[in-house]
Amino acid sequence: MIRRGFQAAVRLGQHRALFGGPQVLPRLNLTSAFGSSTDSLVSRFCPEKTDLKDYALPNASWCPDMLDLYQEFLEKTKTDGWIKLPSFKSNRDHIQGLKLPSGLAVASDKSDWRIFTRCIQVEGQGYEYVIFFHPSEKKSICLFQPGPYLEGAPGLIPVGSLAVLNVHVEKIEDQKLYMSCIAQSRDQQTVYAKCSGIFLQLQLEEESPQ
Amino acid sequence: MIRRGFQAAVRLGQHRALFGGPQVLPRLNLTSAFGSSTDSLVSRFCPEKTDLKDYALPNASWCPDMLDLYQEFLEKTKTDGWIKLPSFKSNRDHIQGLKLPSGLAVASDKSDWRIFTRCIQVEGQGYEYVIFFHPSEKKSICLFQPGPYLEGAPGLIPVGSLAVLNVHVEKIEDQKLYMSCIAQSRDQQTVYAKCSGIFLQLQLEEESPQ
Repeated sequence: MIRRGFQAAVRLGQHRALFGGPQVLPRLNLTSAFGSSTDSLVSRFCPEKTDLKDYALPNASWCPDMLDLYQEFLEKTKTDGWIKLPSFKSNRDHIQGLKLPSGLAVASDKSDWRIFTRCIQVEGQGYEYVIFFHPSEKKSICLFQPGPYLEGAPGLIPVGSLAVLNVHVEKIEDQKLYMSCIAQSRDQQTVYAKCSGIFLQLQLEEESPQ
Repeated sequence: MIRRGFQAAVRLGQHRALFGGPQVLPRLNLTSAFGSSTDSLVSRFCPEKTDLKDYALPNASWCPDMLDLYQEFLEKTKTDGWIKLPSFKSNRDHIQGLKLPSGLAVASDKSDWRIFTRCIQVEGQGYEYVIFFHPSEKKSICLFQPGPYLEGAPGLIPVGSLAVLNVHVEKIEDQKLYMSCIAQSRDQQTVYAKCSGIFLQLQLEEESPQ
């Protein structure tokens, strides 16, 4: 589940603040039932056909810079080894069909679960983002446009404009992934933030058919 | 602006992840125009009468544990030196009438700005929290009940139940505040997370009358 690992890196600090570190995220072990090829991982986690809404698609709120870079990376998916990751409303959609390790069970209630980065439904008001992933280079790029509902300390957030987040896997040690992220303006003249963190990968298996 | 410092500690990691560290938050310098007494700070930042909606009040979504502890701390505000902090929709409401240092100017557009912890409007779906502050002991308590729109990695967040966040000022060095936070279950048997961070206080002055 390489994709989820990267996606998580982008929001690293928030989780670390409230819910502990290092990160324990369900991540597909390469030696698991899905095999080790990138292709099989990609087809598992980036389904080409699905009824689920993909929130990582352009909408009317995206600023020209964001649209522009989106198109640029979309072109790169054709030839340069980049993959555009889909973004569904809930993690439950992303991990559908996978059995979680005990202790990480997903509640079975009928709540309208949403991954917190998709919690604000009005376009442009909250988290607008799309992630492109480059498996062989172990890096990803997140185009992120924060909206006015993400207010923090005055002046720190480039609300309504683009932040480009570069995420790299620094090293892998057994189950541990060391990742870093730098958030910058498109022209790289402004650094909004840097962060790094350790993620633990857990082995996931396909659920047995009922 | 002691209150804001504490409030910020609660969401420390999120800011650190995307928008740099240490934290640069406008915080009232005790030697500023407002004087140094706790009373004057409290009356400035915890107005007893205001037209602004206070989101840190019980609603139908609060679980019994949250309501119970809320009442317990509310009682303590009468005799034990605790103060219940109000929570308005936007930081702009909290810093009304204060001049920000240059570089931290607040955009003057008419957007519907919301502090990110008040971005989800449906009761119980997002961040339900209230903060009590004890000035002389330099600590605060945040009662936090995350909702299903704050989904992260499966199993890590006690959605719908209470997390108690204890925030302490570890030390103060000139402008620097060293703060730490531990998030636990009410019975303290489960530690959800620990974090610490450094906040910088900036001197704020009252805006000159127009």
